Amino acid sequence: MRRSIATVSVSGTLAEKLDAIAAAGFDGVEIFENDLVSSPLSPEEVRDRAADLGLGIDLYQPFRDFEAVGPDALAAGLRRAEHKFAVMERLGARTLLVCSNVSRDAVDDDELAAAQLRLLAERAAAHGIRIAYEALAWGRHVDDYLHAWRIVRMADHPNLGTCLDSFHILSRGTDPGGIEAIPGEKIFFLQLADAPRLAMDVLQWSRHHRCFPGQGDFDVAGVVGHALRAGYRGPLSLEVFNDIVRQAAAARTAVDAMRSLIALEERATAPATAPTGFAFAELAVPAPERLGELLTALGFARTGGHATKPVELWEQGRARILLNATAREGTSLAAIGLETPDPGGAVRHAEHLLAPVLPRHRAPGEADLHAVAAPDGTELFFCRTDDPAWRADFSRPREAPGGEITCLDHVALAQPRHQFDEAALFYRSVLGLRPAARVEFADPYGLVRSRAMAGPGDAVRMVLNIASVGGGGAPWQHVALASTDIVATARRLRGLTLPIPANYHDDLEARFDLGPERHRLLRELGLLYDRDEHGEFLHLYTATYGRVFFEVVQRIGGYRGYGTAGSHVRLAAQHDGPYP
Amino acid sequence: MRRSIATVSVSGTLAEKLDAIAAAGFDGVEIFENDLVSSPLSPEEVRDRAADLGLGIDLYQPFRDFEAVGPDALAAGLRRAEHKFAVMERLGARTLLVCSNVSRDAVDDDELAAAQLRLLAERAAAHGIRIAYEALAWGRHVDDYLHAWRIVRMADHPNLGTCLDSFHILSRGTDPGGIEAIPGEKIFFLQLADAPRLAMDVLQWSRHHRCFPGQGDFDVAGVVGHALRAGYRGPLSLEVFNDIVRQAAAARTAVDAMRSLIALEERATAPATAPTGFAFAELAVPAPERLGELLTALGFARTGGHATKPVELWEQGRARILLNATAREGTSLAAIGLETPDPGGAVRHAEHLLAPVLPRHRAPGEADLHAVAAPDGTELFFCRTDDPAWRADFSRPREAPGGEITCLDHVALAQPRHQFDEAALFYRSVLGLRPAARVEFADPYGLVRSRAMAGPGDAVRMVLNIASVGGGGAPWQHVALASTDIVATARRLRGLTLPIPANYHDDLEARFDLGPERHRLLRELGLLYDRDEHGEFLHLYTATYGRVFFEVVQRIGGYRGYGTAGSHVRLAAQHDGPYP
Repeated sequence: MRRSIATVSVSGTLAEKLDAIAAAGFDGVEIFENDLVSSPLSPEEVRDRAADLGLGIDLYQPFRDFEAVGPDALAAGLRRAEHKFAVMERLGARTLLVCSNVSRDAVDDDELAAAQLRLLAERAAAHGIRIAYEALAWGRHVDDYLHAWRIVRMADHPNLGTCLDSFHILSRGTDPGGIEAIPGEKIFFLQLADAPRLAMDVLQWSRHHRCFPGQGDFDVAGVVGHALRAGYRGPLSLEVFNDIVRQAAAARTAVDAMRSLIALEERATAPATAPTGFAFAELAVPAPERLGELLTALGFARTGGHATKPVELWEQGRARILLNATAREGTSLAAIGLETPDPGGAVRHAEHLLAPVLPRHRAPGEADLHAVAAPDGTELFFCRTDDPAWRADFSRPREAPGGEITCLDHVALAQPRHQFDEAALFYRSVLGLRPAARVEFADPYGLVRSRAMAGPGDAVRMVLNIASVGGGGAPWQHVALASTDIVATARRLRGLTLPIPANYHDDLEARFDLGPERHRLLRELGLLYDRDEHGEFLHLYTATYGRVFFEVVQRIGGYRGYGTAGSHVRLAAQHDGPYP
Repeated sequence: MRRSIATVSVSGTLAEKLDAIAAAGFDGVEIFENDLVSSPLSPEEVRDRAADLGLGIDLYQPFRDFEAVGPDALAAGLRRAEHKFAVMERLGARTLLVCSNVSRDAVDDDELAAAQLRLLAERAAAHGIRIAYEALAWGRHVDDYLHAWRIVRMADHPNLGTCLDSFHILSRGTDPGGIEAIPGEKIFFLQLADAPRLAMDVLQWSRHHRCFPGQGDFDVAGVVGHALRAGYRGPLSLEVFNDIVRQAAAARTAVDAMRSLIALEERATAPATAPTGFAFAELAVPAPERLGELLTALGFARTGGHATKPVELWEQGRARILLNATAREGTSLAAIGLETPDPGGAVRHAEHLLAPVLPRHRAPGEADLHAVAAPDGTELFFCRTDDPAWRADFSRPREAPGGEITCLDHVALAQPRHQFDEAALFYRSVLGLRPAARVEFADPYGLVRSRAMAGPGDAVRMVLNIASVGGGGAPWQHVALASTDIVATARRLRGLTLPIPANYHDDLEARFDLGPERHRLLRELGLLYDRDEHGEFLHLYTATYGRVFFEVVQRIGGYRGYGTAGSHVRLAAQHDGPYP
């Protein structure tokens, strides 16, 4: 499919937008009128620049408030249209988007609308231009795509077709199945945008919360499928605007946008194979001693040292932590190892989704590890399921000890606010994870937004957090370890856990009646508690090391959450403690 | 009136919140439960700390999902309540806020709700505690304050009353007049919050968009008036949360909060006297030469030099610009002179509203100028209307020349994003200006939010802008000069104006039919054009000097706006030009 994007979807001047869009590999653009109006480039210069960059100008948009009006407004509208046709000829644009009228002056009269659009199409035809009529979700009388199509059909002019926009269709909760009843050649254009489900005024929702397919809650792929089955063969064109995209770097947004289109097309053909588990988490540390003490207290053993690098391997059951003593600054979570049946295929899939493949610095005899970089800089290594051959890189590796900690339950990564949607789409599309609902919790100095995602059978769980905290962002990342006996783990950790206020346990006792003995134990060991309809959750946090802390969790029954009811207590205690 | 605030309304740990709230002069606090739960301070320590700071603990909140439930849930609720009563006794809190049940398990049965609340009030009475029952706007069955009051009346227990919250009442569009039918002694508590009018889910609206009275669109003063007429004599207590307040500095928020309460009380008694005009705008400049050239081209003359400071006075008609050559960095708009009938009264009024009064550095014989600092650092000088006695401070002042520029039309100030509401409340309450609707316009690298405010007869107009642009904020401030003949002004300014793209004039010609001659003139002189139902607006911009540029405007007829239709064109051109 031809891939296009509206210039309004990336930031900058029109020239900067075209450069970024071409660099990300798009085939064409929609020229958003205000981008041209505020540009010092003439339409001819824009046309030539786009051509030099290999971009077609697939659409000029939007033309507003034209149809279903009185004679004076019609005359003014036709005059305005002739000016725009002239601009389009100078640009070399052949299709004009006409949005359904939102003016209070518009009349509720489909026949009038059809007759006037037919007139517009006749005028357009004289310039070799086509009119694509679109129902805005907040159109005065026409706010449904099938209504727009009925008017187009009634007008019956070869230069008049309809434009479909996934946001306008899905935001109204309309069934997109009706698209298949529209002849493909009468769908002149298909605009794609996703959005989170929000209960708010649809115009504000559209202006501030559109996002790229796969970043929101809409079934954009479903709309594409219907359009293709209807016979549509035009571009898949992204039209996205939100407060973050408006101020993000154009080049980065354009790559994110292209990734969303690739993932969208892929969903129908070759869905990602989700990882089957965590192979390891790698921490960059200035020196391994302090974390070594903590890991020892957690029941881990140092099972090997890397043959050629200052990297230690620590293990307990299938939980593996690498301490890489090459960090110049504080401790951070640098890499995640993921088990997958086909590491080579996984990295090719990631590369297809525009993930930068990391150069392999491999000493002779070392394992051939495939790795890519996530947008937040985290390195993702793909390792073969149930075949930790990479352990052979470590000299004298010995057997991992058994203990109550059995594996990694999840990892939580902090994202810059402006890259949350981008990161969510990346992990979702590259790793084939399924996102859960967005949640929010309070930090003493701001608000944290969080979204968990998990693969089939919860074999791999990840949590993405963004924080707007006191001007900066809470920098914490964490690794959660699954314990089969958190009481035993907690006893061994005494003095190394995050102190939990007595007020928390007073409140817990008010909220839950767990019996005096259990409450006493939770209080004594500083354990947090939660439950849902599936089961119970006990957890604790360690002190923080640079940007990183560990969580120990015990899931009892089928508890599905992450203990976010206690997150505000954790954050307050963490702010109280040492902070890099 | 006693002034209180909920701890959730400022950021930080509970200890930090109490300090900031006391420093701003509040009499009491509502303890928000999560603030206590996450605090390492015991309830006794919180009680003692508040007492040491002179703060009463007026309310403990919230207690949720209690009433109108089955027997098991009732037993659990009473058990939970006993735990909370114990905490309240340790805190020394005497009133508990109970919110209407939002749980799906709640039954729609007022008699059951009343009976169970009566039971709760009996238990509370044994501890000397009162229950204040409040209708949440999103309560399952009780979402209206009069409904909550009917249940309270039915329960008929001296320790049970109602709590009113302006947000919950006004967000539902309910008539607050019914408050007066409630006996004052049964209104146990009054919570105040404002909010911008938004069409969105009321729970999200409440969580993310509450603001202090005077910052939003609600008639909070009306609610207070009804409560006072009903006989309410308890605290006026602010309960505000939004994404910005959560991360702002606690001390600053607490002052902003206190200002909102003072202004609220004042609105009923002694409203502000709005300025009658601009006396001057003062620019801090590194050196006056370049701006002197511009002002000369604009038709200004240097009419005097300050006797003791490196300040030049430039005048044309009643438009006066001071160039103060003490800036270490680039040019900025440092001060605004406002004419008012009673400068001394104006500064006392500003001080009452917590504006810092600036020390007067007055040489012998110099005019006694009263000045305060706005939250954004702008200095506001109050000068006597029609009595520019301060001109005498300038040596050899000569007569101001006449010309087509007659006065300052408006000044526009850039605000940091996190201080927009604070600044709006400050200028509104201190200067008695009336805010207009919020507008937004696109910048190539972000979005600008703007709010104009004006005094009676538009004698003083100000525009506050915030920009979220490429991680930073667009720093521009500007002074708009009113011209009676902008064509003449533009001809003299050639080469010093901001270049406007030809595409803008092509689009203007498509949108408006002003005749070929007028369009040619607008295009030739780089003038922008707008109109509304009252009249027409012609304007132009100068080049930018440091953070500052000038706008020249000509209002024809009764045009009321600020030409924001062209703002995106201006911003794109400004980004193209030299930028500090």
